Amino acid sequence: MRVILPAGTTETALIDGISAAGAAPELMEHTPSADVEILEYGRPTAAPVTPVSPTGCPTPAAITRAVREVVGFDVTVVDAGLAQPTNAPTVDLGVEPGNDIRGAEAVPDAAAIYDRAHGYGSSLPDDEVMIGETVPGGTTTALGVLTALGEPAGVSSSLPDNPIERKHRVVDDALDASDLEGGDCADEPLAAIRAVGDPVQPTVAGIAAGALESGSDVTLAGGTQMVAVAALLRHAGIDAPLSIATTSFVADGQDDLEEACDRLNCDLTVTDPGFDRRAHCAMERYCAGEAKEGVGMGGSLSLVPEGRMDEVRDRVETVCTRLGIDENGANDGAP
Amino acid sequence: MRVILPAGTTETALIDGISAAGAAPELMEHTPSADVEILEYGRPTAAPVTPVSPTGCPTPAAITRAVREVVGFDVTVVDAGLAQPTNAPTVDLGVEPGNDIRGAEAVPDAAAIYDRAHGYGSSLPDDEVMIGETVPGGTTTALGVLTALGEPAGVSSSLPDNPIERKHRVVDDALDASDLEGGDCADEPLAAIRAVGDPVQPTVAGIAAGALESGSDVTLAGGTQMVAVAALLRHAGIDAPLSIATTSFVADGQDDLEEACDRLNCDLTVTDPGFDRRAHCAMERYCAGEAKEGVGMGGSLSLVPEGRMDEVRDRVETVCTRLGIDENGANDGAP
Repeated sequence: MRVILPAGTTETALIDGISAAGAAPELMEHTPSADVEILEYGRPTAAPVTPVSPTGCPTPAAITRAVREVVGFDVTVVDAGLAQPTNAPTVDLGVEPGNDIRGAEAVPDAAAIYDRAHGYGSSLPDDEVMIGETVPGGTTTALGVLTALGEPAGVSSSLPDNPIERKHRVVDDALDASDLEGGDCADEPLAAIRAVGDPVQPTVAGIAAGALESGSDVTLAGGTQMVAVAALLRHAGIDAPLSIATTSFVADGQDDLEEACDRLNCDLTVTDPGFDRRAHCAMERYCAGEAKEGVGMGGSLSLVPEGRMDEVRDRVETVCTRLGIDENGANDGAP
Repeated sequence: MRVILPAGTTETALIDGISAAGAAPELMEHTPSADVEILEYGRPTAAPVTPVSPTGCPTPAAITRAVREVVGFDVTVVDAGLAQPTNAPTVDLGVEPGNDIRGAEAVPDAAAIYDRAHGYGSSLPDDEVMIGETVPGGTTTALGVLTALGEPAGVSSSLPDNPIERKHRVVDDALDASDLEGGDCADEPLAAIRAVGDPVQPTVAGIAAGALESGSDVTLAGGTQMVAVAALLRHAGIDAPLSIATTSFVADGQDDLEEACDRLNCDLTVTDPGFDRRAHCAMERYCAGEAKEGVGMGGSLSLVPEGRMDEVRDRVETVCTRLGIDENGANDGAP
């Protein structure tokens, strides 16, 4: 099993109040760069920030890293539009950061990105690949493409109170700016991404399509953002088996997740890491609905063999300590 | 233990008859790109060539990969001047391919590369790092810097008959082109690299120096090229403990290796993978003195726990089959 992590950015994340991925807006574009360093090295090494919310909820990268330290799996990071440097090794597919979806074109070269990602995905020798994502603002762009495709699914949020009305308004403005209405991009997934998506979407979708074509089993590791990718693939006419693996935090807050997976003919795996058994701020924040998912968290949790989740919870504490987050949520500002 | 692999190129490799790293000169600049794909994915995925000599000797990347599949260790590839694209994830330190050392400047920005690599090395959280290399022509540039520094060590070769006289002539021409004589760069390692080195040298040396400074144990994984890096570090005034780990193939063919390590105050570990116990062309070619070392091979072999080398030899056969090399040395041209 190889875990592939496309990491990118979109200016959409800077719209006030839509993302919790990064405590301060000016640092948010460092979040994916920091996330992939946490995944590769165990903590940020060059990124000037540790992604932790004001209430002490660490980035899902911390959880995925903890699982990796327990289970061990290969991670390959793909640069899907990073805006800031990272010391993590990345596959270079020539992807640029995405534009605000309220402009004319969110991802002008969506088709070219998809093609290159497809070539990369089809080159992989692995029997099984799992594809995650890290892109602040990604649930809003997910709502964008789902709406453009005419898919009814709702989307989740990294905030405990999903600012869904605000997201809908942003998406409405975005569709207007592209002279589109909901459903106008049915069967035209690349047009949907170009107009109202983000650069991580054609990267994930392209890798998935290429890997499927070459005979790999593909699991999309994530919540509603991966529902959007699955929808993009189905609207591209790809009917190969697809799985989605996410966390209980997404599934519990998203009534129509199962229904969306059914409609898109995707197997759904939901893993509960049992964070309610620990009195540690990081895990309590997840139980309170913060962050919920991202950076392949739900997919990685699905790889934990039965009986070893307690070890994962121990390791989450270790990783949090390394990141300067104590059990009370105090963040000493490390790294 | 993290294995870091700076991978790069120098036009010096194109000088007739000095390198076996790639069967045909026009394909040689793909060799490091293919090597790092073999390390990451188990076989080349985008590189148009599998580095195998005309006699059927596979790149040392095949051996390092086999060890990795048995032992398991993290590999981080650093782009230290790749000339051709690779699908492997790489750390980007902004390093360009090196020039022919017979020109005015082999690595014009050696000092800047060293500084960036130092910053990267010092950022690593690992207690132990092992640093390898893949750069065709690297033993000639190693001879270049050793000569410029005034160090007496000889260098090894990827060819069974080391074209050492030719290398000396190339290095003499290179020093002439830079208005230097042997020893002129004593205590000026970056001047030596700039004049007659390659871009992988300041990358390896900088990472090593940075990692040492932050308290990591550093092992240089390689043969005479790593002796050259150790010399560069000692001439930079760095006197921290250093280890070199290489293969018996280098050590058996290089009488002054131990002496050089003594002089440079480096621990030397030599590992014999016992390839003479197998009637498989790939392993026979190593026993005949081809390839010998590279891509962290000797270092990775030093990580094999006692009693598991037979498993490594089995795995070398598996990797060779995957690369299209059969036990008789026939290469079906895959991928």
